[in-house]
Amino acid sequence: MNSIRLVRDELRPPGPPPRRHLLSVADLTRDDVERLLGTAGTFAASMDRELKKLPTLKGRLIVNLFYESSTRTSSSFELAAKRLSADTLNIKSVGSSVDKGESLKDTALTLGAYDPDVIVIRHPQIGAPQLVANVTGAHIVNAGDGKHQHPTQALLDLYTLKHEFGRLEGLHVAIVGDVLHSRVARSLIQAFELVGIRCTLVGPPALLPRDLGVEATTDIAAIRDADVVYVLRMQNERMEQGSNFVPSLREYAAKWGITPERLRVGQKVMHPGPMNRGVEIDPRVADSIDSLVEAQVRSGLVVRMAVLYDVLTGGPVGVRALAAAEVA
Amino acid sequence: MNSIRLVRDELRPPGPPPRRHLLSVADLTRDDVERLLGTAGTFAASMDRELKKLPTLKGRLIVNLFYESSTRTSSSFELAAKRLSADTLNIKSVGSSVDKGESLKDTALTLGAYDPDVIVIRHPQIGAPQLVANVTGAHIVNAGDGKHQHPTQALLDLYTLKHEFGRLEGLHVAIVGDVLHSRVARSLIQAFELVGIRCTLVGPPALLPRDLGVEATTDIAAIRDADVVYVLRMQNERMEQGSNFVPSLREYAAKWGITPERLRVGQKVMHPGPMNRGVEIDPRVADSIDSLVEAQVRSGLVVRMAVLYDVLTGGPVGVRALAAAEVA
Amino acid sequence: MNSIRLVRDELRPPGPPPRRHLLSVADLTRDDVERLLGTAGTFAASMDRELKKLPTLKGRLIVNLFYESSTRTSSSFELAAKRLSADTLNIKSVGSSVDKGESLKDTALTLGAYDPDVIVIRHPQIGAPQLVANVTGAHIVNAGDGKHQHPTQALLDLYTLKHEFGRLEGLHVAIVGDVLHSRVARSLIQAFELVGIRCTLVGPPALLPRDLGVEATTDIAAIRDADVVYVLRMQNERMEQGSNFVPSLREYAAKWGITPERLRVGQKVMHPGPMNRGVEIDPRVADSIDSLVEAQVRSGLVVRMAVLYDVLTGGPVGVRALAAAEVA
Repeated sequence: MNSIRLVRDELRPPGPPPRRHLLSVADLTRDDVERLLGTAGTFAASMDRELKKLPTLKGRLIVNLFYESSTRTSSSFELAAKRLSADTLNIKSVGSSVDKGESLKDTALTLGAYDPDVIVIRHPQIGAPQLVANVTGAHIVNAGDGKHQHPTQALLDLYTLKHEFGRLEGLHVAIVGDVLHSRVARSLIQAFELVGIRCTLVGPPALLPRDLGVEATTDIAAIRDADVVYVLRMQNERMEQGSNFVPSLREYAAKWGITPERLRVGQKVMHPGPMNRGVEIDPRVADSIDSLVEAQVRSGLVVRMAVLYDVLTGGPVGVRALAAAEVA
Repeated sequence: MNSIRLVRDELRPPGPPPRRHLLSVADLTRDDVERLLGTAGTFAASMDRELKKLPTLKGRLIVNLFYESSTRTSSSFELAAKRLSADTLNIKSVGSSVDKGESLKDTALTLGAYDPDVIVIRHPQIGAPQLVANVTGAHIVNAGDGKHQHPTQALLDLYTLKHEFGRLEGLHVAIVGDVLHSRVARSLIQAFELVGIRCTLVGPPALLPRDLGVEATTDIAAIRDADVVYVLRMQNERMEQGSNFVPSLREYAAKWGITPERLRVGQKVMHPGPMNRGVEIDPRVADSIDSLVEAQVRSGLVVRMAVLYDVLTGGPVGVRALAAAEVA
Repeated sequence: MNSIRLVRDELRPPGPPPRRHLLSVADLTRDDVERLLGTAGTFAASMDRELKKLPTLKGRLIVNLFYESSTRTSSSFELAAKRLSADTLNIKSVGSSVDKGESLKDTALTLGAYDPDVIVIRHPQIGAPQLVANVTGAHIVNAGDGKHQHPTQALLDLYTLKHEFGRLEGLHVAIVGDVLHSRVARSLIQAFELVGIRCTLVGPPALLPRDLGVEATTDIAAIRDADVVYVLRMQNERMEQGSNFVPSLREYAAKWGITPERLRVGQKVMHPGPMNRGVEIDPRVADSIDSLVEAQVRSGLVVRMAVLYDVLTGGPVGVRALAAAEVA
């Protein structure tokens, strides 16, 4: 968001340029990250009240455009918008014009004509959020594009780590599993580098890309050196299609599954969800007090509130702005 | 709701215990029922106004988590929440993480991390609402679990009967049809006993359990003794699977279908919907002035408003509370 | 809407009769059209503000009942309701009681028992909106019934034309394509006649009904005489079913597709969406500055706001009413 993106405006009425988007972790500076985490923290404080709704974005419209099913991410964005009093319009590819073969571009042009304040988009195609940014006047938030990026996941994980450890710089996180197909891993690696977190990739050779510029090992024992073990979801659907990446789920679990035995006492565990209990993560680990999974969900809500607020208001969050919002 | 349920709180931040749930009619006292019907009546009065929305639950979040499709129940709960100015988050199993094989427990933990005020849940598995109560800090309302319970249906039926007859005690209701598979029947039988309504079960031998502790007969003529004939939905999907419960829909309709000829003049008829016209209920009965089906739908809305209000506010509803709400 | 429709009220509590519906363009007078377009224009002005939401229909309930998938129309109605601060309840046939075989009549009776202010309905069956009007107490807006009517599409197209040309009377519009199966074309032809727009139908002989009382030709060159070329959607699903209406999509595109070469310079093009780029419309035309497609979407929003407002308030829109609404 440091490099504010200018878009072609030929087809639309002139609005207040320039717009702020969140398309990729690669666009963020360390200052951006700190500002966003700070805003999220401010919102988190208001979540402790009995009435959690803030009037901050009252009268605004957030469109959630999801081309892949996702309870977690779509409900998190929807609720983030509602907690800020924005209106939401949820468009899912199932049961929509998408069925009739309309192109993403035309869907975006249609939604753009409603002049929404923000379009949150998840799409299997890399670059889809940029395309929507190009043809609409809305602020765009990438909620996951193909194997490319999932920037709010990376931000919520940073928030979770900072909340847990009180700092980010100097932490060591082991990312375990199917790194090859994971947009979460790609986003995390960039985010970790930005804030000074050491990162080690661990997994089966076929799922471990060597071109990401970070340490990588096939030795599962390597996770013990890390402060946090970040377990990636093993995508059943990929394996059931008879690919050769992994012999079987059973074998994957035996070799790479995160069990209590493989962890140090007190070592923290994260997972972006939904979890395959008994595959990449042992249920005893998922339910242990060292699991940060619920904290991640909680962080996701306030981080997405912060992202919506930040792209829309464009400036640093001051005490004054939030205080005024609470009074309104 | 008399036996307020305490839950394990290890995994969650401490909230204001104890929480009130509506999991089963078996948890209710007669006082609970009378209080809830009274609240529903208060809300019903406000439904006569041109603007029916009340600010009572403004800023609250109601999650509707439906693992079975249902227009009636899910829209009734959604609207009940909206009429009270609460925000809603609707999660359906189709197109959600459920598709990815996430367990109910993990979905509940995720939703619980949003700190919703109430989770309304429908699930094919008996006990699912209790599981969600165990792992979240929300108030839980059971919107139907397997063949077990559907407590708001029982409450709305009591409300409908009271509105129609001016009393509950001493009424006689015949429940006709597939009692064996019906959570509606199970909930009604308990509710009827609680308030002093006599209940007779009528249906084909294979669909008539004998262990429910109430009168049961295979003689369809027995319905004439009742003040009200409560017709259960014949579940086509069950019959099409080639079960041996009933020979055919045609034969069922001939032997057990509720026709004008089988009713006394003025005898009232109820049905939880959706109706199979021409199977368990003759269209002439469904459309007659003695059908209370629309009244049941109308009752469902105000009873669900009352349930949401009651679990959240925890105390008896006074004139003062509602009056204050209207002013706010 | 001039001929206000009285309905049987036996089954419902008496409400304030008579109700206003928008079932068909055939019900509208020229005065109705002008009033609605005027209201839409008033709302369009408010869409230029940063906060676009108006409190006009606060506390009202709009039910969107869609038996056919449609991103465009359903999201347009949902947003129109939300921009006016109404609450919405969206019912789609997929995942609803419709799955359980409930009749439209019973679904309507159920929804009607909620006393919604407006029911917006799309249904594959001609006359479905009238049926819902007959059995509920709500104001009904037809969002498309079979091949019959799609009145808000016609109104938004008139609004778009008036905004573009400054007038309606005397314009000449060529409607091109599958007129036979198009409810859009049927609605447009009536609307054009009402306001004095000349209309020419152009298309393959098998898709060109001759009984609509307007000029019709199979000569694609005829479009050059028109001020506007209105391109109908070629329904793939129909062609894939092996009908004999059109030999193939490729051949249709070659003979009837709207390309830059077939248009005069500056000739305007409209399309109700979603577009099949490369079939009935060349991408260069879809993206040209003479395309009014996005303007149509924009018009759809304010026209539907005007329709909801008009059926509910029943009277002409005065400056005073809107001004008061803004203050509230």
